[in-house]
Amino acid sequence: MAGSTYGKIFQITTWGESHGPALGVVVDGCPAGLSLSSDDIQAYLDRRKPGQTKIATPRKENDAVDILSGVFEGKTTGTPISMMVRNTSQRSSDYSEIANYYRPGHADYTFDAKYGFRDYRGGGRSSGRETVGRVAAGAVAAKLLLEFGISLSAYTVSIGPIKIDRNKFDLNTARTTSTGMPDPDASAAAEAYLAACMHDYDSSGGVIECVIDGVPAGLGDPVFEKLDANLSKAVMSIGAVKAVEIGDGTAVSAGLGSQNNDPFRMKGGHVSKTTNHAGGILGGISDGSRIILRAHVKPTPSIFSPQQTVNRQGENIEISIRGRHDPVIVPRAVVVVETMAALTIADALLLNAGAKVEHLKRIYGR
Amino acid sequence: MAGSTYGKIFQITTWGESHGPALGVVVDGCPAGLSLSSDDIQAYLDRRKPGQTKIATPRKENDAVDILSGVFEGKTTGTPISMMVRNTSQRSSDYSEIANYYRPGHADYTFDAKYGFRDYRGGGRSSGRETVGRVAAGAVAAKLLLEFGISLSAYTVSIGPIKIDRNKFDLNTARTTSTGMPDPDASAAAEAYLAACMHDYDSSGGVIECVIDGVPAGLGDPVFEKLDANLSKAVMSIGAVKAVEIGDGTAVSAGLGSQNNDPFRMKGGHVSKTTNHAGGILGGISDGSRIILRAHVKPTPSIFSPQQTVNRQGENIEISIRGRHDPVIVPRAVVVVETMAALTIADALLLNAGAKVEHLKRIYGR
Amino acid sequence: MAGSTYGKIFQITTWGESHGPALGVVVDGCPAGLSLSSDDIQAYLDRRKPGQTKIATPRKENDAVDILSGVFEGKTTGTPISMMVRNTSQRSSDYSEIANYYRPGHADYTFDAKYGFRDYRGGGRSSGRETVGRVAAGAVAAKLLLEFGISLSAYTVSIGPIKIDRNKFDLNTARTTSTGMPDPDASAAAEAYLAACMHDYDSSGGVIECVIDGVPAGLGDPVFEKLDANLSKAVMSIGAVKAVEIGDGTAVSAGLGSQNNDPFRMKGGHVSKTTNHAGGILGGISDGSRIILRAHVKPTPSIFSPQQTVNRQGENIEISIRGRHDPVIVPRAVVVVETMAALTIADALLLNAGAKVEHLKRIYGR
Amino acid sequence: MAGSTYGKIFQITTWGESHGPALGVVVDGCPAGLSLSSDDIQAYLDRRKPGQTKIATPRKENDAVDILSGVFEGKTTGTPISMMVRNTSQRSSDYSEIANYYRPGHADYTFDAKYGFRDYRGGGRSSGRETVGRVAAGAVAAKLLLEFGISLSAYTVSIGPIKIDRNKFDLNTARTTSTGMPDPDASAAAEAYLAACMHDYDSSGGVIECVIDGVPAGLGDPVFEKLDANLSKAVMSIGAVKAVEIGDGTAVSAGLGSQNNDPFRMKGGHVSKTTNHAGGILGGISDGSRIILRAHVKPTPSIFSPQQTVNRQGENIEISIRGRHDPVIVPRAVVVVETMAALTIADALLLNAGAKVEHLKRIYGR
Repeated sequence: MAGSTYGKIFQITTWGESHGPALGVVVDGCPAGLSLSSDDIQAYLDRRKPGQTKIATPRKENDAVDILSGVFEGKTTGTPISMMVRNTSQRSSDYSEIANYYRPGHADYTFDAKYGFRDYRGGGRSSGRETVGRVAAGAVAAKLLLEFGISLSAYTVSIGPIKIDRNKFDLNTARTTSTGMPDPDASAAAEAYLAACMHDYDSSGGVIECVIDGVPAGLGDPVFEKLDANLSKAVMSIGAVKAVEIGDGTAVSAGLGSQNNDPFRMKGGHVSKTTNHAGGILGGISDGSRIILRAHVKPTPSIFSPQQTVNRQGENIEISIRGRHDPVIVPRAVVVVETMAALTIADALLLNAGAKVEHLKRIYGR
Repeated sequence: MAGSTYGKIFQITTWGESHGPALGVVVDGCPAGLSLSSDDIQAYLDRRKPGQTKIATPRKENDAVDILSGVFEGKTTGTPISMMVRNTSQRSSDYSEIANYYRPGHADYTFDAKYGFRDYRGGGRSSGRETVGRVAAGAVAAKLLLEFGISLSAYTVSIGPIKIDRNKFDLNTARTTSTGMPDPDASAAAEAYLAACMHDYDSSGGVIECVIDGVPAGLGDPVFEKLDANLSKAVMSIGAVKAVEIGDGTAVSAGLGSQNNDPFRMKGGHVSKTTNHAGGILGGISDGSRIILRAHVKPTPSIFSPQQTVNRQGENIEISIRGRHDPVIVPRAVVVVETMAALTIADALLLNAGAKVEHLKRIYGR
Repeated sequence: MAGSTYGKIFQITTWGESHGPALGVVVDGCPAGLSLSSDDIQAYLDRRKPGQTKIATPRKENDAVDILSGVFEGKTTGTPISMMVRNTSQRSSDYSEIANYYRPGHADYTFDAKYGFRDYRGGGRSSGRETVGRVAAGAVAAKLLLEFGISLSAYTVSIGPIKIDRNKFDLNTARTTSTGMPDPDASAAAEAYLAACMHDYDSSGGVIECVIDGVPAGLGDPVFEKLDANLSKAVMSIGAVKAVEIGDGTAVSAGLGSQNNDPFRMKGGHVSKTTNHAGGILGGISDGSRIILRAHVKPTPSIFSPQQTVNRQGENIEISIRGRHDPVIVPRAVVVVETMAALTIADALLLNAGAKVEHLKRIYGR
Repeated sequence: MAGSTYGKIFQITTWGESHGPALGVVVDGCPAGLSLSSDDIQAYLDRRKPGQTKIATPRKENDAVDILSGVFEGKTTGTPISMMVRNTSQRSSDYSEIANYYRPGHADYTFDAKYGFRDYRGGGRSSGRETVGRVAAGAVAAKLLLEFGISLSAYTVSIGPIKIDRNKFDLNTARTTSTGMPDPDASAAAEAYLAACMHDYDSSGGVIECVIDGVPAGLGDPVFEKLDANLSKAVMSIGAVKAVEIGDGTAVSAGLGSQNNDPFRMKGGHVSKTTNHAGGILGGISDGSRIILRAHVKPTPSIFSPQQTVNRQGENIEISIRGRHDPVIVPRAVVVVETMAALTIADALLLNAGAKVEHLKRIYGR
């Protein structure tokens, strides 16, 4: 099935495997007239890059993007924007062993079950490198959204048991810490925790939060295409994400209606809410306040401890995974969550253009 | 935008407002040759019906379904199955007041913001009655899945602070308790809790779990159409759901890789897992074990306590909602979660038919 | 497969069989705020109705439409518009015989081949009555287009060898002649021709033309979603249509470039064309001039002459079809062509809203 | 809008402009396990290449394809197949002049009208080079279809007034003549006709026919997704095609039912037809006989004669187009028609997998 396409109007199609010659994405449906350069894309791809700290994989990924179509004289033309990143550091020899068995927590077994065989080099299509295309496309979406005053920020809120202190929140910090945490103290504690995980041949999960500001009220649709439903799909489609929350999220189930409802009040001549338990979405439609979502990311499944599994011959075996593996997926997934959210909001912005006759009259002027 | 359609091959389109003449659904893409009668549908719709207990709305909803097309001599023909339920108990006069203001926690404001006006009678399209079409369609999906040995069960696992005891789990109980809980003691405690909420003019949230057995390995697709991504969208598209978990869900973020990975072992000649933290899905593809998901449902936003809000004239006002309102959404949403999951699995089953050349050779025999 | 849905944003889903209890359509994605009543729909359905002349089937089809959702206080709400027409005159007993054999020129055999069996009553889903839903939905599209100064007119240009004289063209005439021809003399000749066909137990084909005025330049997309590609699909999806032409159509293949190119000239301050061989579409995008298309419709396959065929038991047999059958499909298909074109243009109008950043700025005002 | 994607399950997304660095396509949804190499693709791309005769453009297009993903150890993996062709011979300087005016018969004006500006180099996205991606993708579809005994052949049946003699039909000839005609005498006559056109600074249209053998009965869907409707869209989406015919096509409109109906007879134990006026499709579903379609292609709009047009400043001007232009589009479009048909049939083959419960039981074996 054609499962590598996302979005209805602002639509992307990603392609590429971990150890093929290249990975990329085609962005189709981006409106014409948006200023765009490869620098805009590269800035987002660089946020995917492993840092210089000890929690990052030593694999050198110098992901340089080429824009191959859809931009002319510095502006998008309305036709497909094709972007490609060459794979430069793959070493297929690393993966000869795993071709024959199923790593726990990975998609090895399910790929074989589905397709009859798989590209076993580095996880093939289920590798984290698959997100290169998402991030490149999401950078375009984010650039478009900025034209309408919409901005997104994702960051790490917890790693294992270490949580940020919301009183120390500083978004700039999130871009400099190796953990993606917006709290330097929590980040230091998380680094220590991760060092201990590595020492124990283990790995850690964590939580990423994304906030979206400036979204006008009215994006999203009432039933199946609720904005929160699409955000959930977008974020849950990132490998390793196992739960998604909107606004107060899981906390709502233990709460009371009197606490959960957000009162409306007028503010500066506009309808506003005095609290935001809903996370900016009511009935699947943006309400004009900040949109808030969180993704729970599982621990890196590649751990060095011995593990039980089976091989393709149907024999029970014990394995010890080797190679280069981060002890935590979260920091590098931050920008992926942010860009998947950007793609979702951009599509909703375009889809909402046809919501009422009045919108169309503004365009066609009749 | 056309937001009332769900699914790619097994595709449904719902329609209808709370206080219009009828609600319904068109199921297009159901394979031909499935035995189907209105009794199959009615059994699911009856599970949506308010019970006889004090936590249920006194509104009498006798939702009798008519199959208008797509079934001939007791079997589906492969053409669209149109089903309709007449609205019988609507009283528009109830809603004259709310036409002019925005109820906190409801979609009143966002509908107005999006469309310029709204059908204010009983929430219109954002009413819980919108799920009638989902449930009717999901009943068809569930019937289809049974042909392939796939069965689904949803039930309540918590209401406010009251959680079920997994040691007392009995699925049959879930179908008889007013709460949908599979534990009679927890259910009794939850009833008491809800009675207290009602006394306080308040409401409660809760958690619904759905398990899916018999799903063959291989359903779902690697990137954006991951099975868990689609389940998340399906469940998050139900009004009032604010978080979705797959398998261990939110617990993975605080955990370790060594705990989270599920070891593979051979069992009865098949690849099997000794634990199921993943909830039956690896890399977005079913792994042959039980699929597990949970939905966190917010408290009923219609509460009788006084609330602050604004009206359409942009004035701050205080309101007290009247009428018939359940103190909890969860029990009636159980079957909605189950049927949305059924629709998602049915679509994945059909989509997977084209996953490999070998599948097609089995069909076309060349 | 879900093959009963048409359109991307202005999206319709039709349902119903010839001899089921009802037929209908759900229109999802119609912008909010359009004035709409059942009279708007009925006017189009009435154009499908057989006339009072001898070329029309004596079957009485009093197709009264009910709007079941999506309209509130006389305006579309942006939510799905469900419309239903009850079948009133079906007589299943007519069809007992054809259940067992395959009528030449009909879909009897292909339905059996595809689905394993079929609803044989009156053609089931492949009956001409399937177009009831298309016409009802297209009436909504046409009403929307009128808001933007876009109007459509379809009419018959030939029946068998009888062609209209373009010098006698009068659109009002087309609505009153039994043939749908805009030339009373040609219509009279065609009626005589059809009477001869009936006398010979035979039937005739014909050509329908549709012109669309007021379409702004810019609708349609460059590659696969060319406006002419979508119009072709829309029209070819009508049963019995075997060829589609845009502008000069088939004539272009024998012509010269110097004759086929339409020169541009300024006219009233606007870019205009001095001829319109292209039929209003260049590179798949509307050019602001009249859009012109033609559909070639095959003769009614139900003829009373003896025919050779096979039955479900695989025996060669000879049959003589009985019952009520028009000697020509064309007159009743005129409104179907017109409404399918309306649906296509409406969808293109909505899709084009996101074509450039400037459009969105007009809506969102940032 | 995302208009560069075609197909529902076997889905392709093309990208690239005439004078950008490259063009390409992503094929998503191709079943796993199909043997595929770049040679398979190159053979089709080479058929797009201009020949060595005087009717072909002297522009040297050495379109070498790279497969960048989706194939592992010689077989498709089920994940996206990305293919790219570098543009090597573009010379942007050729196009400085046309940036400022609208060539008659081209999409220059409509692109400007839609997007506000355009990539004017060589037609940008509306160039014939856009079909490189279609052909590469269609080569994959054709390879897949061969596994199921389905083969396609397209060829030229007329150029201007010169028609092939069906008695001299030889498909091998079609692959060697510069015209794509399967009749060497007609081809020679057409070459002479085209030489005369060139001498007169003019160009010619023509007709391409495509036949598809081995299609099992049952492909296509009853209403909007009729196989002929999708073939029409596929073929009409090729630039310069202005009419599409299925089977007898336009001839049906002047004919009689008694001539048009194809009698069924048993043949070799199978249901068969003694004639094939329908072109292999009844009620939108393949009937097991040969599928036949024809595309009418307009004359090359780039002609050297002086033409009237307007410029971007809104001034009436006269132009004379220079450069390299074929006097006829048809020969190079033959493979495009064939591959667009292949893509359509491949998608229908996959979609039909879910048509009946029995199909799925063959796959899932329950």
